[in-house]
Amino acid sequence: MSDFSAVDLICAKRDGQALGPREIAWFIDGYTAGRIPDEQASALLMAVYFQAMAPDELAAWTKAMIDSGERLDLSSLDRPTVDKHSTGGVGDKVSLVLAPLMAACGAAVPQLSGRGLGHTGGTLDKLEAIAGWRAALSNTEIVSQLAGVGAVICAAGAGLAPADRRIYALRDVTGTVPSIPLIASSIMSKKIAEGTAALVLDVKVGSGAFMKTQPEARRLAEAMVTLGEAHGVRTAALLTGMDTVLGLTAGGALEVRESVETLAGGGPADLVAVTLALAREMVESAGLDADPAEVLASGAAMDVWRAMIAAQGGDPDAELPRASVVETVDAPADGVLGRLDALAVGVAAWRLGAGRARKEDPVSATAGVVCRAAEGDAVRAGEPLLELHTDDESLLPGALAALEGGFEVVAEAGPPRPLILERVTAGGRA
Amino acid sequence: MSDFSAVDLICAKRDGQALGPREIAWFIDGYTAGRIPDEQASALLMAVYFQAMAPDELAAWTKAMIDSGERLDLSSLDRPTVDKHSTGGVGDKVSLVLAPLMAACGAAVPQLSGRGLGHTGGTLDKLEAIAGWRAALSNTEIVSQLAGVGAVICAAGAGLAPADRRIYALRDVTGTVPSIPLIASSIMSKKIAEGTAALVLDVKVGSGAFMKTQPEARRLAEAMVTLGEAHGVRTAALLTGMDTVLGLTAGGALEVRESVETLAGGGPADLVAVTLALAREMVESAGLDADPAEVLASGAAMDVWRAMIAAQGGDPDAELPRASVVETVDAPADGVLGRLDALAVGVAAWRLGAGRARKEDPVSATAGVVCRAAEGDAVRAGEPLLELHTDDESLLPGALAALEGGFEVVAEAGPPRPLILERVTAGGRA
Repeated sequence: MSDFSAVDLICAKRDGQALGPREIAWFIDGYTAGRIPDEQASALLMAVYFQAMAPDELAAWTKAMIDSGERLDLSSLDRPTVDKHSTGGVGDKVSLVLAPLMAACGAAVPQLSGRGLGHTGGTLDKLEAIAGWRAALSNTEIVSQLAGVGAVICAAGAGLAPADRRIYALRDVTGTVPSIPLIASSIMSKKIAEGTAALVLDVKVGSGAFMKTQPEARRLAEAMVTLGEAHGVRTAALLTGMDTVLGLTAGGALEVRESVETLAGGGPADLVAVTLALAREMVESAGLDADPAEVLASGAAMDVWRAMIAAQGGDPDAELPRASVVETVDAPADGVLGRLDALAVGVAAWRLGAGRARKEDPVSATAGVVCRAAEGDAVRAGEPLLELHTDDESLLPGALAALEGGFEVVAEAGPPRPLILERVTAGGRA
Repeated sequence: MSDFSAVDLICAKRDGQALGPREIAWFIDGYTAGRIPDEQASALLMAVYFQAMAPDELAAWTKAMIDSGERLDLSSLDRPTVDKHSTGGVGDKVSLVLAPLMAACGAAVPQLSGRGLGHTGGTLDKLEAIAGWRAALSNTEIVSQLAGVGAVICAAGAGLAPADRRIYALRDVTGTVPSIPLIASSIMSKKIAEGTAALVLDVKVGSGAFMKTQPEARRLAEAMVTLGEAHGVRTAALLTGMDTVLGLTAGGALEVRESVETLAGGGPADLVAVTLALAREMVESAGLDADPAEVLASGAAMDVWRAMIAAQGGDPDAELPRASVVETVDAPADGVLGRLDALAVGVAAWRLGAGRARKEDPVSATAGVVCRAAEGDAVRAGEPLLELHTDDESLLPGALAALEGGFEVVAEAGPPRPLILERVTAGGRA
């Protein structure tokens, strides 16, 4: 590979020029291999934060990240592969329902997931509330489980996009996380490397999401859809609301329980609606002929769930753990719950032990928040509005403080917030 | 010192907020001590590149850099102290004449200087063409030489603004050199730490200078003047032209010879004019009653020069070394030298061996360029226009290539370029 100058590349990006594919490949390869030091990579990342990247440049950047590692080969499967990725929210347990549901619809779902950081939960952390369940699978185990069960939710192996792991760790300490091209390339490099043929993105918008406004969420969605298509992955995105909690729970075991209820045909209406909207996109992307609502009602998704959990060492019949301390927050007045802020609930759950401040911190499986009412529900003064679950009583004051100003009881319900805000596909948005 | 989060500071700067004095002191102190890693410092520097700094913030940043080391104490001297700093140009040997001249006017001149990088020469490199002369002096030697001779040109010791040394080395490899607040704080932290009571800045503008345009040079001058005054150093700046070579030589021994000619009452008119303009500013800043032109004509500055060189181990009577190879570039036509580009001559001198690409490279004392004509001079076809001096014949083609398009012979002389473009003081510009 020809030799460029790292300083020249930094200066070019700083001055708003687009880097070429060979320059980008040289930089990413050099950084992953340790030839380019952290201080030059972080300067480039900050320059990207300010100057962004042109579409071709972002495609080359993402390709270099994929090329830094292996790409899973799912070509032996006789079902169409399709995956979903969410940018993260509070109470977002959609994957737990959607992966078995899509397998029941006839797809193979290679859902390589992450852990939570801050107020947003991680799918792997949630599933670890199930006794015996393990997140780490070998590539062979992944392919074999996809062939047998049709769905797998597990940790991405170290061999997939190792450049992303290094770059993400650097971004985390250098103030370069909130950059649309860097977010898009981080997500898409892993999803493309996992080998799925189709992908549906759930880009969350609102107080509890990374993207606070619809225009920035749309830009991220467009960047990711363009990247997926450029790498031969059929990609579509839904922008969905994250100003309030999705479903009624936030926190490991609490969310697993709610997911199982949903798989059993119950569950909160908003969770069901978002799950089915994403499932319909995935059915279309995968070219399947199935009605996700019917499949969910049939109980077939629950069967896949049980098989999926068991295949990874978990006992689907085991009792989920419960917190030893449950404190309630009562409604201050009669009326309607006018606002229940996702960020406030997410931070409360985090402070109760459900989330981590640093990626090496442990999380509590039992901690979290249960909402006894959703936005728009009638409430009565003095009756419980929220339950705070924890095994450490000393964490309650911090959680209560996070909830201050986070909800509002009003006389009359406003119009409900829309759940599905927008659809972004390669052909444009709709 | 209280504890901040480096990431929070980087994000605040990235988002355009001004950092507070305690935050800045914590960051600079932590970086200098090695507690804050290079990748966080470079991310902050790139954020500063894009978001700049408010005046108070820049003053705090500079103060933290000064506070990272010692401050020379010149209070024992019975003469007023005054120094000059140039932002660097091609053929800029002003310091060699000005330091002894100002001492002869009654000032003490603590001229702590640097080495050259790229196409601009360094004062210490030039003086090292004199046999025996040494750049490194202890603080005691500096003060003693100022008391006895009145002028010293030497290397800044490692104890002065060590934070600047670390930060400058980092900027060099991370594309964060061309930032006005970072340039201003780098220069001024060292000049303030050296203990001078007054300072005159020569901010070069043009092709051979770091600042290519007058507005950016003015912004740098204003930032530095404000910083100097904020730290109790009477500071003024002249913006001077650097589109063509200053004087007729570029390169170590060649420039020393031209400086000695100027001290002897000769020398090129532009070099004399810029030197006297700066000297008049310094006389005023230092509160002296002297006419620099008269002092120069009297030979008193030459006496100081000889004493200054001798005090640092040099032999002022020693023959200066000469290059073994001298190649000429001839005028292509009869006419007037309409343009002689500073950058072209600077790069040619550098490629002949007079400059260094990396700060650890050696430089040749004999290499450089002699201009046989200045802009506006009549030239005749076939007669020498430039002499290229080197001890390594293989370097000639590169130097000749640098000069291509670097000069122009025209039929009629245009108006001469102004030498002194603008004056910037604490009261504003004039």
